[in-house]
Amino acid sequence: MTAAAARGRGRPRREEAAGTRARILTAAREEFSERGYDKTSVRGIAKAAGVDSALVHHYFGTKEQMFEAAIEAAVAPVLDAPDALAGAGPSDTGERLTRYFFGVWENPATRTPLLAIVRSAVNNEAAAAVFRRMVVSQLLRRIAGGLDVPDRELRAELAAAQLVGCAMLRYVIKVEPLASADLERIVARVAPVVQGHLTGP
Amino acid sequence: MTAAAARGRGRPRREEAAGTRARILTAAREEFSERGYDKTSVRGIAKAAGVDSALVHHYFGTKEQMFEAAIEAAVAPVLDAPDALAGAGPSDTGERLTRYFFGVWENPATRTPLLAIVRSAVNNEAAAAVFRRMVVSQLLRRIAGGLDVPDRELRAELAAAQLVGCAMLRYVIKVEPLASADLERIVARVAPVVQGHLTGP
Repeated sequence: MTAAAARGRGRPRREEAAGTRARILTAAREEFSERGYDKTSVRGIAKAAGVDSALVHHYFGTKEQMFEAAIEAAVAPVLDAPDALAGAGPSDTGERLTRYFFGVWENPATRTPLLAIVRSAVNNEAAAAVFRRMVVSQLLRRIAGGLDVPDRELRAELAAAQLVGCAMLRYVIKVEPLASADLERIVARVAPVVQGHLTGP
Repeated sequence: MTAAAARGRGRPRREEAAGTRARILTAAREEFSERGYDKTSVRGIAKAAGVDSALVHHYFGTKEQMFEAAIEAAVAPVLDAPDALAGAGPSDTGERLTRYFFGVWENPATRTPLLAIVRSAVNNEAAAAVFRRMVVSQLLRRIAGGLDVPDRELRAELAAAQLVGCAMLRYVIKVEPLASADLERIVARVAPVVQGHLTGP
């Protein structure tokens, strides 16, 4: 068999593998979103994707690793926030970060997987570990890395706490009047707080 | 039978009933704390308390009503916050509320049931409804009621969002350095934010 023939035969297989991997990933995202981390099993994901459990383990490893891969795409827009902040002057970082954060939550396409991650992370230590590793380490460290102040990591986390608390009360627990309040009214009060945490005295 | 004899026979029954009710309440609090709202059943609570399910329904009604009764004692210290604020001048409300909130979370005896409530409320609409009704309506409305500013309910909720977000990142998700940071460093940064939400411009 020539090298060209091998490539010719190999390509469809690689494409098929990529298709199977993508199908497992979609099934996993849906299962974790609908059932949460605890109630989702590798067997259930395999069944939903129409493959054998062994294949799920082959491509993605453990359930925790499968969860990490499944939410990676879902949180990608959140992890992009520091890029969204590129070019932000020190004085408008708070507002840009606040608008970016609420924009991700206001969009149903990104809100649904985020809700699944929050629900899983609150109830399961393995899911919380993934949340810490991905969202917090990557997102917060990058934001904090751009600050030229003492305590910059703690500052970035307290800014995040104001935003995370807003998401909890507005989108998860749905407390009124915050849940229905006009976004501009919220941004007007929250953006200066985020700014203050990041660059204030 | 004389009235005195009736009272004599009635008293032990009333005491027994109070004991049974307390035993069911303790069992319910433990079941909800350990398993969360979804996985707890009235049957399981009855079994743990050594009584019939019908008796649980007789004393407490539905599972949602049982949950509300079970967490009432657990959140009582939180609901007492407005009393803890009695006598606070307008300028130190933020610091007193912040210290009070973290005090409740730093104490393992109150942190454990609070964690159970947060976990249940994040994952279950019935539990979220109880959370809204008890904690938010009672606590926030009373805090907001003491404010003489426009938008006082939204302001109280944004102050709560800063505190709730801190609790999520420090005690639930356990993000570093916030999870291990000295409480005084946190209070120094958070209290002015809470104060600003409540009474700032």
